[in-house]
Amino acid sequence: MDFELNEDQRAFAETAQQFAMGQLAPMAAEWDEKQVFPKDVIKAAGELGFLSLYTPEDEGGLQLSRLDSSIIFEQLAMGCTSTTAFMTIHNMVTWMIASFASKEAKQSFCPNLISGEWLGSYCLTEPNAGSDAASLTTSAKKQADTYVINGGKAFISGAGDTDVLVVMARTGDQSAKGISAFIVPADADGISYGRKEPKMGWNSQPTRAITFDNVVVPEHFRLGEEGEGFSIAMKGLDGGRINIATCSIGTAQQALNEALQYVKERKQFGKELAHFQGLQFKLADMVTELVAARQMVRLAASKLDNKDSEATAYCAMAKRFATDVGFKICDQALQLYGGYGYIKEYPMERHFRDVRVHQILEGTNEIMRLIIARRVLAEGSQLL
Amino acid sequence: MDFELNEDQRAFAETAQQFAMGQLAPMAAEWDEKQVFPKDVIKAAGELGFLSLYTPEDEGGLQLSRLDSSIIFEQLAMGCTSTTAFMTIHNMVTWMIASFASKEAKQSFCPNLISGEWLGSYCLTEPNAGSDAASLTTSAKKQADTYVINGGKAFISGAGDTDVLVVMARTGDQSAKGISAFIVPADADGISYGRKEPKMGWNSQPTRAITFDNVVVPEHFRLGEEGEGFSIAMKGLDGGRINIATCSIGTAQQALNEALQYVKERKQFGKELAHFQGLQFKLADMVTELVAARQMVRLAASKLDNKDSEATAYCAMAKRFATDVGFKICDQALQLYGGYGYIKEYPMERHFRDVRVHQILEGTNEIMRLIIARRVLAEGSQLL
Amino acid sequence: MDFELNEDQRAFAETAQQFAMGQLAPMAAEWDEKQVFPKDVIKAAGELGFLSLYTPEDEGGLQLSRLDSSIIFEQLAMGCTSTTAFMTIHNMVTWMIASFASKEAKQSFCPNLISGEWLGSYCLTEPNAGSDAASLTTSAKKQADTYVINGGKAFISGAGDTDVLVVMARTGDQSAKGISAFIVPADADGISYGRKEPKMGWNSQPTRAITFDNVVVPEHFRLGEEGEGFSIAMKGLDGGRINIATCSIGTAQQALNEALQYVKERKQFGKELAHFQGLQFKLADMVTELVAARQMVRLAASKLDNKDSEATAYCAMAKRFATDVGFKICDQALQLYGGYGYIKEYPMERHFRDVRVHQILEGTNEIMRLIIARRVLAEGSQLL
Amino acid sequence: MDFELNEDQRAFAETAQQFAMGQLAPMAAEWDEKQVFPKDVIKAAGELGFLSLYTPEDEGGLQLSRLDSSIIFEQLAMGCTSTTAFMTIHNMVTWMIASFASKEAKQSFCPNLISGEWLGSYCLTEPNAGSDAASLTTSAKKQADTYVINGGKAFISGAGDTDVLVVMARTGDQSAKGISAFIVPADADGISYGRKEPKMGWNSQPTRAITFDNVVVPEHFRLGEEGEGFSIAMKGLDGGRINIATCSIGTAQQALNEALQYVKERKQFGKELAHFQGLQFKLADMVTELVAARQMVRLAASKLDNKDSEATAYCAMAKRFATDVGFKICDQALQLYGGYGYIKEYPMERHFRDVRVHQILEGTNEIMRLIIARRVLAEGSQLL
Repeated sequence: MDFELNEDQRAFAETAQQFAMGQLAPMAAEWDEKQVFPKDVIKAAGELGFLSLYTPEDEGGLQLSRLDSSIIFEQLAMGCTSTTAFMTIHNMVTWMIASFASKEAKQSFCPNLISGEWLGSYCLTEPNAGSDAASLTTSAKKQADTYVINGGKAFISGAGDTDVLVVMARTGDQSAKGISAFIVPADADGISYGRKEPKMGWNSQPTRAITFDNVVVPEHFRLGEEGEGFSIAMKGLDGGRINIATCSIGTAQQALNEALQYVKERKQFGKELAHFQGLQFKLADMVTELVAARQMVRLAASKLDNKDSEATAYCAMAKRFATDVGFKICDQALQLYGGYGYIKEYPMERHFRDVRVHQILEGTNEIMRLIIARRVLAEGSQLL
Repeated sequence: MDFELNEDQRAFAETAQQFAMGQLAPMAAEWDEKQVFPKDVIKAAGELGFLSLYTPEDEGGLQLSRLDSSIIFEQLAMGCTSTTAFMTIHNMVTWMIASFASKEAKQSFCPNLISGEWLGSYCLTEPNAGSDAASLTTSAKKQADTYVINGGKAFISGAGDTDVLVVMARTGDQSAKGISAFIVPADADGISYGRKEPKMGWNSQPTRAITFDNVVVPEHFRLGEEGEGFSIAMKGLDGGRINIATCSIGTAQQALNEALQYVKERKQFGKELAHFQGLQFKLADMVTELVAARQMVRLAASKLDNKDSEATAYCAMAKRFATDVGFKICDQALQLYGGYGYIKEYPMERHFRDVRVHQILEGTNEIMRLIIARRVLAEGSQLL
Repeated sequence: MDFELNEDQRAFAETAQQFAMGQLAPMAAEWDEKQVFPKDVIKAAGELGFLSLYTPEDEGGLQLSRLDSSIIFEQLAMGCTSTTAFMTIHNMVTWMIASFASKEAKQSFCPNLISGEWLGSYCLTEPNAGSDAASLTTSAKKQADTYVINGGKAFISGAGDTDVLVVMARTGDQSAKGISAFIVPADADGISYGRKEPKMGWNSQPTRAITFDNVVVPEHFRLGEEGEGFSIAMKGLDGGRINIATCSIGTAQQALNEALQYVKERKQFGKELAHFQGLQFKLADMVTELVAARQMVRLAASKLDNKDSEATAYCAMAKRFATDVGFKICDQALQLYGGYGYIKEYPMERHFRDVRVHQILEGTNEIMRLIIARRVLAEGSQLL
Repeated sequence: MDFELNEDQRAFAETAQQFAMGQLAPMAAEWDEKQVFPKDVIKAAGELGFLSLYTPEDEGGLQLSRLDSSIIFEQLAMGCTSTTAFMTIHNMVTWMIASFASKEAKQSFCPNLISGEWLGSYCLTEPNAGSDAASLTTSAKKQADTYVINGGKAFISGAGDTDVLVVMARTGDQSAKGISAFIVPADADGISYGRKEPKMGWNSQPTRAITFDNVVVPEHFRLGEEGEGFSIAMKGLDGGRINIATCSIGTAQQALNEALQYVKERKQFGKELAHFQGLQFKLADMVTELVAARQMVRLAASKLDNKDSEATAYCAMAKRFATDVGFKICDQALQLYGGYGYIKEYPMERHFRDVRVHQILEGTNEIMRLIIARRVLAEGSQLL
């Protein structure tokens, strides 16, 4: 057992920290306010490898472990939660294509996704499906050597401003085995985008619904075999949960750093807030829970890297715990700021708004509880 | 003991409910988005007496009890948290002037404040004072039969769009006894307003800083005697805490109503959310805590009405408990909505943003804990 | 609305307080340690009317409201949780017989139960039934003008040391309508008692299982009509939940009083614990939640007195909230005592052990949540 | 980074698990009920090395890391919380003597402590000192080549039944530098023991006060130099906190295992408890928090092994978090058992009672919060 970062990990973290503080943090408030999707900065992140962290080296990625990737994403999230969250989604799209696409498709898409020349969106959720894959109704009908896609997706990050979509669609029966995955160029004929969804946070990435009306893609744009879509999605989900959990701890760390600074400076009743024991108790719990949440994320990432048979449960635990703790810390940091926590001149209310959605995304935390409970109650569970 | 509303109270509540659902709820999202201060609608509320609920009848108010007022404000807050919160502040300003002003000043200001022709702002908080009255530095210097006011106030609700200010300023030494209260016309010479503060919520009421640069007011604009300002402010605070707590429970009630409707309609995995036991447990706790919070608010209002020697502690308890519970319920209702909870098409994220500031305002909930602890530990405390 | 005790209620409370502090508190530790069932003291309580608080006057009871009874039980629980809890069960038994028994049976049993000459046990729970009435298997077979009872009961308070049992048994089909209620003399032929169950707390009342082997009772020992047993049990349950919730708040009040005294005396680092802000914050929350819990209990009692259509849900809320809060306060009071909280020389660990079972009894708090959720989700619910 | 147990660690854990289930678990209920101090079984643990886990090899110990020791203690605590907790104290005493004693004293004491022939008690706490070392008043006066000890200690684990005491006493001024540590034979002239303290739990180890009345020990029984006592105590404390935290997670793991078994077997309303989603949600949180708590303990142990400059803060975090989580899990496991959780026939109520004291011992969890807050607020803190 070893709980310390190695030299490489410290170096990655430092590079990411510099990028976060230099390129993301100074702009985050403006991107939030004006709903700017900072494509150029994301592309700059690509130059440092941040858009293909765990993409296989063979296709041009860094092929880092999930654990290493989490260490990097955590630092980035300290600069801008919303932009980093988008980058984690783009990383997943890039990894999926680099891992499951046909040779031809890999060659077309990977270089541009890795560089950030093109950006990717992940299209799983449907308006009436939510967490329930069996309800997925978008269809892909085989027709000669093409597929014709019809249906709709909802809450798609980046949609309307990205270049490449990975779309889950039904090619077979109503079971999980009836789902396949496809690469779809974002400007294909028959695709239309809904209005930019006004959201409470995550404003530096657009969210739109997508409608597919007889959208034709060549057969070699399918990822894996027919019927493997659900399995590919599940592989993505475990990593996606670590990523979103990571964005929560990065944001919480930033909020906590700022709050610590604030309580050392702000005076009330003639002394700094830092001297009030009631607030010290709160700070102590914030620190403790942040450390625990980070451990949970790294443990889960390590289980995923080791292909542990209980990795899915560990990822669900990390996602549940870290996103709940992350929000709680941001909420308490806001409270420590008093009235200043509520106004947009200070970053607290943005952290608070941004991090809140992590408890909902990638499977709500209620769904996480079901996943954990099922595993621990299963015959032969290795979880405990 | 009697826990039921009487006939009058039911009638008040119904009128308020109609106004809330007819005049406030349909516009609340737009006011939030466009940061509209709905003066006309507030004036319409005045026609129903909602701007002078506990203002003495002699000056034209309804002279209801704090308990009755809370029952009404709760219903109004179901329509729009932010607008109702402003109305509670206006009520406090109106009550202060009607209770403590000179006869002349009462005659000038009360009718217009009661009708809503003029709106009022309450100016206590200063940038470096927060919860610490002793730090108040805005000064009012007696000069012949006038006072000359200098200094600054921060986070003033309505400032820049209201007509009448009640300003706490120092007329004497650094103690609480050195503070006096004044009516100041909002357009007096020497007053300037800061920019409209961008906030996370409470967007239907503008918040601005105010600077007083040799602002002259006649002596008869003073409320009470010289040195009574702190005592007047304290009297206002207890009621202000009940009001803000009331806004939290009204909002939480509305969020809970909406969530109950939603879980009965939204299906996942083939059945309505309402059938999932894990969510039922959450709903049960939300209901229970809302009922408890409402009881706390009404108990405190009743203690204030009865001039109970421990009323201040009860008001602090109600404020702490109801604003914490109110936020928690809105947070959980948002979670029940899943992704829909996070987008502005649905009201959840607005409830969540609006209600959050109540844990900070009128004395943070940390200050409330100190007030409660001091009383319960005091010699001869009647609190328990 | 009126939140104050009236003169009668204050007088009742005072009498109960005197009895609690004079007769119960000085012995409670010894009764706990030696597992003494203090029949004489319970009988002395009967002389003050405390064994027939809400029993109809016609049968010799005080016929107080549930609210008044709760005010009295709360004071008694301050003296000894476990003994008071038994007295509330005895009160229920007495009330059931006085309300539903045949004239003949009333005359035989009521006077002795009211005076405490005889004590009563309530026999609903069965080993495999828990919260599920439909699983009740103890049977009562009509035979001429008698019933013959067979089966077993578990966790019966007082069993083996009481004189009168009220037994729920199945006279009909597997539905709730198949259950009837009977008075059974505790020494009837065919009754045998299990060993005295060693428990974590509630040690001043014995708990035993009971086996019924062809126990014959005359027909006129049936309460109400055949098939009304479940309905009678349900009527008892609402009140039982208020009673147990009341025992929690009385105990919590006592623990809090003791903790307040302790923190004012105990010094650490050169000053009294009461001066540490971190502990003040905790005390403030304990006080606030206790006040809220008491309000919930009184509100529910009042709803039950008024035969409110949602009384069952209010009682479930009160039981859930007050027993959770009661335990939490005792737990925190124990913590404030430090090492002294853990040893039997001080009362804290007894409060903590005694009050814990209230979250389980009379329907677990999980069952309470289901009751609340079902009501609030029901068509036409008047709960909110 | 590596989160997996290595082969050695798995082997240690397995041996400990066998001992725990074979020697401790079957007797734990009886030891608790009859307050048996199981010296023979503790001696048997010594044969496996469990009494000198981190004692230096040079003195005959296993010289394992704190992390390895924690892995072992966790398994032992699954068998009996109270006995394992005593063994961790004995380990500390043995380690202190082996690390800081004179050569002569090491030779006299270590072999017998390592084998379990002699048992040791650690004597720091005084009746009026609690967590405040500066208040320590037991004195050790140098007299020729001896020290004469006078004063009293409180809450000493094992006292009256152990053979060797390590005693902190004041040899100098009122500061931390005025404290020295001594080995004192438990039967030295002038030592008297108080009555066996009746406690809520931890009943397999006696707790007594000790009075020192002119107790004479030779100079070479001093540990380290004069004035180093506080520093030695502090070194012990970090490890002691990991140990007690470890006992909490071992107990919680055992309680959770038992609860999982129970919910799979116990039926209500016609199906196993395991199928109720409301309970699944609870189980999921119990599992998640247990995993997080274990990570915190291992992280802290690793920091201590690495002599990390923030090790003390990590140990405080682990102690606070793991003892709170451990109690919460035992409390919830008890609740899942319903009425069976409250009776002594089942182990739940014992886990619940035993684990509760961990939140108080080795510095209360409130003191832990202060330690954490001070570090994170300190200039140059490396904690975050």
